[in-house]
Amino acid sequence: MSYHVHPPAGPMNLYSYFISSNPSTAFNPNQVWPRISKRSYLSPYSYVAGDVTIQRNVFVAPFVSIRADEGSPFYIGEGTNLQDGVIVHGLKNRYVEKDASKYSIYIGKNVSCTHGSLIHGPCLIEDNVFIGFQAIVYSAVIGEGSFISTNAVVTNGVQLRPHSFVPPGATIDTQVKADSLSGVPKNDAEFAKEVQRVNLEFPAAYSLMFGEIRCSCGLSCSRGRLDNLTDS
Amino acid sequence: MSYHVHPPAGPMNLYSYFISSNPSTAFNPNQVWPRISKRSYLSPYSYVAGDVTIQRNVFVAPFVSIRADEGSPFYIGEGTNLQDGVIVHGLKNRYVEKDASKYSIYIGKNVSCTHGSLIHGPCLIEDNVFIGFQAIVYSAVIGEGSFISTNAVVTNGVQLRPHSFVPPGATIDTQVKADSLSGVPKNDAEFAKEVQRVNLEFPAAYSLMFGEIRCSCGLSCSRGRLDNLTDS
Amino acid sequence: MSYHVHPPAGPMNLYSYFISSNPSTAFNPNQVWPRISKRSYLSPYSYVAGDVTIQRNVFVAPFVSIRADEGSPFYIGEGTNLQDGVIVHGLKNRYVEKDASKYSIYIGKNVSCTHGSLIHGPCLIEDNVFIGFQAIVYSAVIGEGSFISTNAVVTNGVQLRPHSFVPPGATIDTQVKADSLSGVPKNDAEFAKEVQRVNLEFPAAYSLMFGEIRCSCGLSCSRGRLDNLTDS
Repeated sequence: MSYHVHPPAGPMNLYSYFISSNPSTAFNPNQVWPRISKRSYLSPYSYVAGDVTIQRNVFVAPFVSIRADEGSPFYIGEGTNLQDGVIVHGLKNRYVEKDASKYSIYIGKNVSCTHGSLIHGPCLIEDNVFIGFQAIVYSAVIGEGSFISTNAVVTNGVQLRPHSFVPPGATIDTQVKADSLSGVPKNDAEFAKEVQRVNLEFPAAYSLMFGEIRCSCGLSCSRGRLDNLTDS
Repeated sequence: MSYHVHPPAGPMNLYSYFISSNPSTAFNPNQVWPRISKRSYLSPYSYVAGDVTIQRNVFVAPFVSIRADEGSPFYIGEGTNLQDGVIVHGLKNRYVEKDASKYSIYIGKNVSCTHGSLIHGPCLIEDNVFIGFQAIVYSAVIGEGSFISTNAVVTNGVQLRPHSFVPPGATIDTQVKADSLSGVPKNDAEFAKEVQRVNLEFPAAYSLMFGEIRCSCGLSCSRGRLDNLTDS
Repeated sequence: MSYHVHPPAGPMNLYSYFISSNPSTAFNPNQVWPRISKRSYLSPYSYVAGDVTIQRNVFVAPFVSIRADEGSPFYIGEGTNLQDGVIVHGLKNRYVEKDASKYSIYIGKNVSCTHGSLIHGPCLIEDNVFIGFQAIVYSAVIGEGSFISTNAVVTNGVQLRPHSFVPPGATIDTQVKADSLSGVPKNDAEFAKEVQRVNLEFPAAYSLMFGEIRCSCGLSCSRGRLDNLTDS
């Protein structure tokens, strides 16, 4: 294979994110763009594609991929945070149900998905759930207020009752294991609340900081002017 | 240390990837640029550096690093997918052999490297292998059609026979363990095939979607015009 | 929610990183910009925000997030490398002490943080430490020359003596476990030194390669001209 050199432009100090529709495929022919509340915040180097709804006060950290090009749609509730390196993706034609609608991935309100965790559809994560470092949730229903510790895996179609505690490194891959989980210790519940509270400050604080930054094109590019962001 | 403020440009909705040669170092003085088939697809926020060959119909997801600046060269076969956050890197002066050539990393055809997995050279991954979420393959030879489950580690110079099944979270670090692996269960083999088939749609579907998008410079920048992409 | 389409610009072959202050929050009202030695190297798609000091000859790989917007400040010593996908973040109001100063995260000289590892404050990592693939260090003090293997977790306030060896996949979450660790085997110690030596070549080698690359704006943008980079 012959080739030529096309050098990259740069280096540049640049705040860019990526938002687009999914591509049209045999399993997902309709192209849908994300709907993202203007009161949420997408960090530099975040990626959102396809039929994704992001409600207000959501914090999306750098290197987060929300890729609804196979499983779809995704819903991310108010006050939720997706920390650095989180991946959100789903299998095609596999759904959870919430409020009589079908989703590949439904994440409720005030959920913390901490650094490096993987949320893979089909899955339903109810409000106030905490997902620890590098944990994996895939093909599962996670009851309200549950706490999934560092490096844990919850999978294989299990359903966790509200306020279930998954210990560090545990694999919950049968309903028997899921049903035997104990409740969330008080310290962990308080820690989870505090993490969510801290992250809740970021959407407004970051948006304020970048509201006046201008594009290299010379025009002001505050997020409010991006047409795919909504007023909610 | 004194310093001044240089604010970043942005926010911008931007599709950028990064392709370059490796830098010249004592252990790798020759600078080589990647050769990437025009029929493959590099997502926004993907990174490819050094002596890397990417054959046709390869899907490279966001936040994938293919960094041939130490171990080199890398080969990635037709129809393979590297999902979000995959890292491909190799140790210097350590090689595998394939078809009488030496590689730091050789990945065959129709391989799925799923979200967050790490492929570290020296390693040889034969055709139709499936590598699960956050799994690690480092210093290993993986026989054709093998299935490496979520969070597994295969390392320490082991060689897996074709169609080996590595269970979730297993560490295969001796040849005795490698030789004791059973075959891939039918369900898992079918799942692996389906994942590969789905990802095979993405290079053309994404390229079609972005073919007409224009650079901020005002010129059309469809991938076919990048000089370091090849016609194969 | 109604919305309109704002297509992304691209595709572009672009070397961009992101450097900014932290945003002003209730727990962290002062905005501080990173101080980064001009003799260090930030790869494309690296992210540094807030009160972060990066000394000379540090290599920051693609998709590394150094986000001092909650816990703060961070210090990264001379000759240290942060490989692809490393995340550096800290809890608010939690500190370690080093040389009579308080840090959320202090990383000494010649430390290797390998691919996908997570360094979460409060933590103190002394000189010449090696942190393996996807390992987690969170709320810990790591003595000089320690070796933390692949997938290990060190947490819960433990202190590791100098030259401690944490085996692959081990969880060190009590001081008793920490105190029972043996020394670093000779092979691993040599391997760690070699990894650090290799990465030490990258800052100068990469900077040389990109020194002459020009921005899309037409101006030369060698890193030395960025005002937030220091002369040290």
